[in-house]
Amino acid sequence: MKKAVVLLSGGLDSAACLYWAKARGWRVVALSVRYGQRHARELRSARSLARRAGAELFVVRLRLSWLAASSLCDPGRKLPDVPLSKIGRGPIPSTYVPGRNMVFTALGLSLADAVGAQAVVLGANALDSSGYPDCRPEFFKAFARAAKLGTRGRIAVLAPLAKMDKAGIVRLALRLGVPLDLTWSCYKGGRKPCGRCDSCKLRAKGFKKAGAEDPLA
Amino acid sequence: MKKAVVLLSGGLDSAACLYWAKARGWRVVALSVRYGQRHARELRSARSLARRAGAELFVVRLRLSWLAASSLCDPGRKLPDVPLSKIGRGPIPSTYVPGRNMVFTALGLSLADAVGAQAVVLGANALDSSGYPDCRPEFFKAFARAAKLGTRGRIAVLAPLAKMDKAGIVRLALRLGVPLDLTWSCYKGGRKPCGRCDSCKLRAKGFKKAGAEDPLA
Repeated sequence: MKKAVVLLSGGLDSAACLYWAKARGWRVVALSVRYGQRHARELRSARSLARRAGAELFVVRLRLSWLAASSLCDPGRKLPDVPLSKIGRGPIPSTYVPGRNMVFTALGLSLADAVGAQAVVLGANALDSSGYPDCRPEFFKAFARAAKLGTRGRIAVLAPLAKMDKAGIVRLALRLGVPLDLTWSCYKGGRKPCGRCDSCKLRAKGFKKAGAEDPLA
Repeated sequence: MKKAVVLLSGGLDSAACLYWAKARGWRVVALSVRYGQRHARELRSARSLARRAGAELFVVRLRLSWLAASSLCDPGRKLPDVPLSKIGRGPIPSTYVPGRNMVFTALGLSLADAVGAQAVVLGANALDSSGYPDCRPEFFKAFARAAKLGTRGRIAVLAPLAKMDKAGIVRLALRLGVPLDLTWSCYKGGRKPCGRCDSCKLRAKGFKKAGAEDPLA
């Protein structure tokens, strides 16, 4: 049996990855990072999802003082509220967390190399996204090459959602039996999704296009 | 003026990088990581070196439970003591810290992207090394490509020592005026270098071949 580390934020995309790896029959080790995101709601989701999927979960606490400049790490800053049609088409928004996917994937590779996993799986995708540079397929392709060369176990980096839009991800999640009520996508936290941040809008678009109902809506 | 993030462990190689970047006229921001290494001696060296060089220093604390399997992170384990001629020629030694250079470089890129630096500089080199996969030039070449694609600032990853042997690094350090008495290479910590770990042996070899005296010897 193959073993894989899945980067699990607690959102829709990473939950789909968790069940995608499980469906392939792999033993899954999940990794969540507490990096100063403005709310802990998504980490609660990550815990629930890992428990439900029967995956071991590692939570790493990362205090990087320089991330305070991102609106995703500073509850005192306003989150962008832009029309859906403009998401991912303008400059990189204030929610960008410098190097986040790179750091998380590197942590995943370290864990994978330590526990003897053959792959790191992550939910990066660029088609319906805010346009962060570290979500682009070209970046992950290059990173995967580096990962193979730089680890003892020649570990693969897999981004199975790379070329999917949000509707495709919703469909995949439904097919895999992801407990969508346990996921959390909203940037804001709180009891109910705000409906106005990039993440809420992209999620709503995905469910609508997939003709499915969001249990959180 | 260009700004660069230098990964600074406190050892000979990273100290040479610190002064190499400084000599190019760059404003230097140093980054050290406390990741559970068996002694804090090298971090004291990093602080002293940064202060001497007039570089701002960020210290990140990283608790990765899975690194305890490395003898570099477990003071209860014996460090390998192999003949100099065998260093880097056998299997990867127990001092390997899974994904360390990848995680540190990713952290450096995150910091660089946050503070607007154009490069991350690190002391990786493979000619006189213990044979860790994440020290090889091919790895850093691939990683540099990923870094350019995955950061807002299209940041460069520079490993100026990549193709040097230890004698070459000692010569460079002397030429750049690195305060060698402030550096620390020994894996063991303590008051005096142990003289028996890979790192001590490679350092001694470098000074000998360069015809220089190690102020720590």
